Amino acid sequence: MNSAERASPLLAPRPLWPEQPDRIPTIEVKSAGQHPLLFRKRIEYVGREVKPGDYVRVIDSDRRVVGYGLYNPKAELAVRMLTWGDKIPDKSFWQEKLARAVQLRRDVLKLDEVTDSYRVIHAEGDGLPGLVVDKLGDVLSAEVFSPGMYQRAEAILNLLEPFCGTKHRLIRCGPATMPQEGFEGPDIKSDGTPPRVTIQEFGTRFRVDFGEGHKTGFFCDQRDNRRQLAAYCKDRTVLDVCCYTGGFAIQAKKLGGASEVTGVDLDEHPLALAKENANLNNVRCKFVQADAFIYMRDLLAAGKKFDVVVLDPPKLIRTRLEYEEGRRKHLDMNRLAMQLVAPGGLMLTCTCAGLLPADDFMTLVCLASRQAGPQVEAATAERGARNSPRPMQILSKCGASPDHPVASNCPEGEYLNGVWMRML
Amino acid sequence: MNSAERASPLLAPRPLWPEQPDRIPTIEVKSAGQHPLLFRKRIEYVGREVKPGDYVRVIDSDRRVVGYGLYNPKAELAVRMLTWGDKIPDKSFWQEKLARAVQLRRDVLKLDEVTDSYRVIHAEGDGLPGLVVDKLGDVLSAEVFSPGMYQRAEAILNLLEPFCGTKHRLIRCGPATMPQEGFEGPDIKSDGTPPRVTIQEFGTRFRVDFGEGHKTGFFCDQRDNRRQLAAYCKDRTVLDVCCYTGGFAIQAKKLGGASEVTGVDLDEHPLALAKENANLNNVRCKFVQADAFIYMRDLLAAGKKFDVVVLDPPKLIRTRLEYEEGRRKHLDMNRLAMQLVAPGGLMLTCTCAGLLPADDFMTLVCLASRQAGPQVEAATAERGARNSPRPMQILSKCGASPDHPVASNCPEGEYLNGVWMRML
Repeated sequence: MNSAERASPLLAPRPLWPEQPDRIPTIEVKSAGQHPLLFRKRIEYVGREVKPGDYVRVIDSDRRVVGYGLYNPKAELAVRMLTWGDKIPDKSFWQEKLARAVQLRRDVLKLDEVTDSYRVIHAEGDGLPGLVVDKLGDVLSAEVFSPGMYQRAEAILNLLEPFCGTKHRLIRCGPATMPQEGFEGPDIKSDGTPPRVTIQEFGTRFRVDFGEGHKTGFFCDQRDNRRQLAAYCKDRTVLDVCCYTGGFAIQAKKLGGASEVTGVDLDEHPLALAKENANLNNVRCKFVQADAFIYMRDLLAAGKKFDVVVLDPPKLIRTRLEYEEGRRKHLDMNRLAMQLVAPGGLMLTCTCAGLLPADDFMTLVCLASRQAGPQVEAATAERGARNSPRPMQILSKCGASPDHPVASNCPEGEYLNGVWMRML
Repeated sequence: MNSAERASPLLAPRPLWPEQPDRIPTIEVKSAGQHPLLFRKRIEYVGREVKPGDYVRVIDSDRRVVGYGLYNPKAELAVRMLTWGDKIPDKSFWQEKLARAVQLRRDVLKLDEVTDSYRVIHAEGDGLPGLVVDKLGDVLSAEVFSPGMYQRAEAILNLLEPFCGTKHRLIRCGPATMPQEGFEGPDIKSDGTPPRVTIQEFGTRFRVDFGEGHKTGFFCDQRDNRRQLAAYCKDRTVLDVCCYTGGFAIQAKKLGGASEVTGVDLDEHPLALAKENANLNNVRCKFVQADAFIYMRDLLAAGKKFDVVVLDPPKLIRTRLEYEEGRRKHLDMNRLAMQLVAPGGLMLTCTCAGLLPADDFMTLVCLASRQAGPQVEAATAERGARNSPRPMQILSKCGASPDHPVASNCPEGEYLNGVWMRML
């Protein structure tokens, strides 16, 4: 196997389940909880030498078995739990876990009826911390976040493939993962997967470029929101801010019958793909390469308004240090976007920054609306006049599509929050 | 007009807009805000005698006009604001407000395509605090919460009727409103509206009994959640706890093709209507009159499990004093309901208690899942063994359908919160 040869010995593929269960090393934690992510500071004692990616048996101070997980001595996030109680993650554990995950998407959510692309494994949400797998057409595209999952991803995809009926696979690490987790190896393991595939969602086709794409290549998490948007777009003008490869823009036109669609993004490559996607569906959208702030200010200066505005920026808050600046960016962007909505028009605003929880985001959105009314000129402001608020109605809140479940013992898995609004 | 003759002079219908705008009395508030509900303690000074239901001009300590509202000297909630700035709620204000509200439901949400019943006016959410109006088939069913709206409801419905194409009207006060607001009058004003109508939602028919129904007669707010439930029910067994007139139960069967549906409710009248509704749609559901707690415990004792469980209790927390007990009831109900879900099955849990915010409710639901695993026997518990949690995946959160908007300046208008879960 090509990828295995290239990898350092540390990162060579390993068996999916422990071959000698009685030789699994034990680690003791200070306090036992139910959270699947166990930080180093909670560890009291590590039994014997444990290598990155090894299975460990976690016990509490009374020597009761808390569960089993995958260990990384080099990361702050030391153990990612897989089982609870004295249950070894054996072959049947893995088979059952994967079967359950696929069952949710295929049997419960019936996603095959509307698309050929969805998230199959959503890390903690499917009880498999450190692993995300999207099915994108006939490709399984995995992203791993720990050495343990990096070593086992191929074995997992071997088990998963027959459930999904896919032909190709691709395994990658996010750019931050390897330095953070302290391992090295080839970034992408691919078995000759074509660099691009064409997928469909509600009959609309999208090209996915694995080389250029963020994350696993396509954002399945906005599927239901794209459909909801389309329902509001018939004969309306639409602005898609931070449009990436055109998901919202193209669905607004193709599925929704919008009269005129403009998408704006700063990045060249996704934008080129957005244009290709429009052609692929025989629809006409205007895609503009520009900084969203500058472009929105230009539109405002030109007196332009839209019936529907979508604001779906990339993650603006990656660490707690970025919180204040990210929050300010969100606020500014939302105020500008609101000012571009015609009276009575709709807006969908999203954040994929998990560090900005739903409640905080809602407060921020309401604050933006209080700043989005007609601006008071400086001279009048001195006499005590205030900016007027832009009245708005919150129609509903939304999140990621349900193929991105959140585990009850890991609520921070909720990362995507959106608000549907009507601007008055 | 019959109702006017019966009403005390205080409650006689009044013109919708102020006839002598220059004679509107002024009240001064201590601090000006943007919230539409103004409590008595914020009032500094009332200009001259103001009668219940009068229009007032609200000014701040700098004598700037904050806006106009309807006053009630007898209630804690003294002013319900209608306009902001120096804008009198004149004829054009009312016409525009009602037209905008109808436009949201008909043109934006396109509700006429899927149902003949929806909320037309949602109080603060539509800028009209103190008034709720549902269109139920060819009836406009209003609920008023203040003397000002009680006096003007008929005039409002006169304006609203042509927009909605309805033939009948009905105006009621909730049982708590009159004592709380300190006025008296006939509870229901009706112009010969038939006591019952038959409405449709996604092609499923429901009978609405205005005499027996809670609130305006039918809960339009769960429309989208009923449809979502139906999508999960094909060939599944379904339990609808606190089923009221059978909304979820009947849609699970009729729209969703469930194999077997059981609804349980304590109240006789809604349950009789639920049975009628099942017959009306030629579907068979089992409806049981019982206390939800006792019935769920009986089902558990009998080892019964369901593929899908809906838990949508009535408002269990009406005042802050009821918070702790209501929270405990929610917790117990959720734990029991979770235990009745078959492995891999789904559950929708809701609360319509606005005093239990979304985040608190989610915490409560997660806590219930931590108590819903196999129970430890007393003897084992003494040796330190714990109840195991019931693992679950949160698929999505939901709220009221978007014909129940929330105003950005009155976030407490959000009262319905739901969570879709898959129990593992």
